Amino acid sequence: MSHRFIEAIDKLTQRFGDKLSTNMTVRVQHAHTMTWLDNEPSDAVLSVMDKYEVSDAIKICQEYGMPVIAFGMGSSLEGQLNAPRGGLCIDMSQMNAIVQVNNEDLTATVQAGVTREALNQYLRDTGLFFPIDPGANATLGGMVATRASGTNAVRYGTMKDVVLSLEVAMPNGEIIKTASRAKKSSAGYDLTRLIIGSEGTLGIVTEITVKLFGVPECIGSGICHFPNVDMACQAVMTTIQFGLPIARIELLDAMQVKACNAYSKLNLSETATLLVEFHGTDTGVVEQATLFGEIIADFGGTDFVWDTDEAKRKQLWAARHNAYHASRALRPHASGLSTDACVPISRLAECVTDTIKDIEARQMIGPVVGHVGDGNFHVMLLVDTDNDTEVAHAKEILERLARRAIDMDGTCTGEHGVGQGKRQYMNDEHGGALAFMKSIKHAIDPNNIMNPDKIWL
Amino acid sequence: MSHRFIEAIDKLTQRFGDKLSTNMTVRVQHAHTMTWLDNEPSDAVLSVMDKYEVSDAIKICQEYGMPVIAFGMGSSLEGQLNAPRGGLCIDMSQMNAIVQVNNEDLTATVQAGVTREALNQYLRDTGLFFPIDPGANATLGGMVATRASGTNAVRYGTMKDVVLSLEVAMPNGEIIKTASRAKKSSAGYDLTRLIIGSEGTLGIVTEITVKLFGVPECIGSGICHFPNVDMACQAVMTTIQFGLPIARIELLDAMQVKACNAYSKLNLSETATLLVEFHGTDTGVVEQATLFGEIIADFGGTDFVWDTDEAKRKQLWAARHNAYHASRALRPHASGLSTDACVPISRLAECVTDTIKDIEARQMIGPVVGHVGDGNFHVMLLVDTDNDTEVAHAKEILERLARRAIDMDGTCTGEHGVGQGKRQYMNDEHGGALAFMKSIKHAIDPNNIMNPDKIWL
Repeated sequence: MSHRFIEAIDKLTQRFGDKLSTNMTVRVQHAHTMTWLDNEPSDAVLSVMDKYEVSDAIKICQEYGMPVIAFGMGSSLEGQLNAPRGGLCIDMSQMNAIVQVNNEDLTATVQAGVTREALNQYLRDTGLFFPIDPGANATLGGMVATRASGTNAVRYGTMKDVVLSLEVAMPNGEIIKTASRAKKSSAGYDLTRLIIGSEGTLGIVTEITVKLFGVPECIGSGICHFPNVDMACQAVMTTIQFGLPIARIELLDAMQVKACNAYSKLNLSETATLLVEFHGTDTGVVEQATLFGEIIADFGGTDFVWDTDEAKRKQLWAARHNAYHASRALRPHASGLSTDACVPISRLAECVTDTIKDIEARQMIGPVVGHVGDGNFHVMLLVDTDNDTEVAHAKEILERLARRAIDMDGTCTGEHGVGQGKRQYMNDEHGGALAFMKSIKHAIDPNNIMNPDKIWL
Repeated sequence: MSHRFIEAIDKLTQRFGDKLSTNMTVRVQHAHTMTWLDNEPSDAVLSVMDKYEVSDAIKICQEYGMPVIAFGMGSSLEGQLNAPRGGLCIDMSQMNAIVQVNNEDLTATVQAGVTREALNQYLRDTGLFFPIDPGANATLGGMVATRASGTNAVRYGTMKDVVLSLEVAMPNGEIIKTASRAKKSSAGYDLTRLIIGSEGTLGIVTEITVKLFGVPECIGSGICHFPNVDMACQAVMTTIQFGLPIARIELLDAMQVKACNAYSKLNLSETATLLVEFHGTDTGVVEQATLFGEIIADFGGTDFVWDTDEAKRKQLWAARHNAYHASRALRPHASGLSTDACVPISRLAECVTDTIKDIEARQMIGPVVGHVGDGNFHVMLLVDTDNDTEVAHAKEILERLARRAIDMDGTCTGEHGVGQGKRQYMNDEHGGALAFMKSIKHAIDPNNIMNPDKIWL
């Protein structure tokens, strides 16, 4: 550690006492732990209780040129939490207060360390809910950082759509509010959307005001099967084109269904499968389900069953809920690596099919699940990282998929973010626009202390 | 005109010939003409045909430090088109090609000079439509610049929600693409949303990719009346809280109805009125209208009639369609000045009621129309600008309304933008965040040539 960083940690210790830890185990737990990217721990971890502590910590780090990396739940997938230059990790998880729920305006204001499940637990008696549901029980601060979405995004949007306003501790320690609680505004630059997806490189989000939604009068869930992934994707495209306001539409490929059958002791046809959910009034849900049944029949969809009973719905969706663990269980000692391509829906079938061909050609295991209503899908590549051939094959598959998505006028990352793992594709994806992102970064964080070495190389 | 600007115009003339005009009438027509703000013409107007011409013009202006102001339709309301430091006005209206409509993905890519009506005219046989409808038949480029919305925003969102990607000529003349056509992305900073609402201060939008929507199977329109504005707003708030997916919900106050009766020879009750529209399936629209009827009854709503027949729908909405001209006709020789406050919906009734009190206390005429489902409303203040007392009163009303909206955690501008007219409120509205907007502006446009002296003082 540099002399300057040792001074910074001294000063942080004076200010924060035993809220600061330099314990190696703590530091490792607060860096990247989710995929095969190396763990690069910070020099110290600070557990903060309020925005003033965040601000003070940033000011000290700014004084010594020490990097600052915010930590929420630790569930990011692209190395966003790593500290390649060392620095201070600020653990936001104790800033977990629900500040205010405004039922009349359908908004909630929460501290950044509140998890999505904690918010929904808090809302359970209000008739309202917060729809954004990435795989993990992430913190809302982390979900802002990566512009997270999930299975509900096809109906309710992503973090960019549901966040009204942010409170952010900026690189100079100043705390700003990015917007009011008005539902729309034309008052100047959209700093809210600039911070969303910036992965902690422009400031640390301390408080978040989100839109809430009414729990639907009726929820219907269903499952159906297709001869192959291509026909399933065609059915999805047609469903979206019909303007059917589907709340969830998730693809599992044959390999994923096989994994789920084994893991959750199910007995599903091991073929391309769609899991769907309809939100609306009692009659609206029946209408939607009926129309959906008609659409899928045109694309070889079979055995469509659906139900509005909660217990039966949970049973129908059981395969999806355990998809991650089921995939990992296919090869327990392998590393799991999730891809995140997102393409215009007209290209989805081709993109998924070509990717599966790539996987099969290299005799790898990579089940596919997809938020296919948005053109987004994940391959869970299971890789023995001690086997050089496998690692080379995996890298080839990743690389080819990222370029394929970009060539289709899509993106290499629909919801996980760039972090360290996808930096090499940003030039291809953004071209000249990347330089303007960098100039914004430099203007707001001239000393490059906020989560450096992320998003671009 | 400065020596440098004369040189710049020489060079522009060499490059563009008679596409460049220095005619005073042309210059005045291309500056602000909509409200009582003074007209401040540019030094020359250039009519461009493609992005390369935009890029070349910007490069020449950059070389000579000459301001660049983009012109679409001329319908902005806050002086966005004025050239207080002189400069070049780039008229985008000839860049009016529909580049591509992708029915499968529900997207359209258009040049910036395409108007919203031209796009919908083009789409008329596709079963798709573009929902954003500011009062004027604005160009999509202009609508991006001001983050426009309109009557459909309560259901379909604003420009920030429906734009997928932009092509922008930046201050160095470089042309960038802000995003792919993927429906969602977590790949770096959201330059799309940064440009939307930046009012030409960061670059000139040359091409826009937007989401399209399916024309609903059924449209129902209706009208109902309330004892006062407060009860109408309470009914709106409850409608939104119920999660009723209303497509339009517009408030007209008693004065506005009176104006519409006179102008359009109608015979409506001259009291607070809501005009509504429901989009959905045949049964869905009946459900929505029935529920809406039940809600308004709780707030003294009466005489609710609605219909799905197109001719009858048009008749019901006639009052709204001519509201602008009807207001102006109340006092034909007065200047019309539109306010644009937007507040959390829980504060809407109070904000509108207090504003009407302000107007009445000063014996001014100011009918109110509102996109009240979003908490946004406009007062059309009719002011004799030769009467100093009236002007002072009008300024007082504007000032008090802007501060009131900001105090209610809302904004002084929901959809018109800041331009020159609302700059004095930005400090109050944004606090410390304003400095970061300015630093972004400086980073991207260091010589301040892009629409200078707008958004902030």
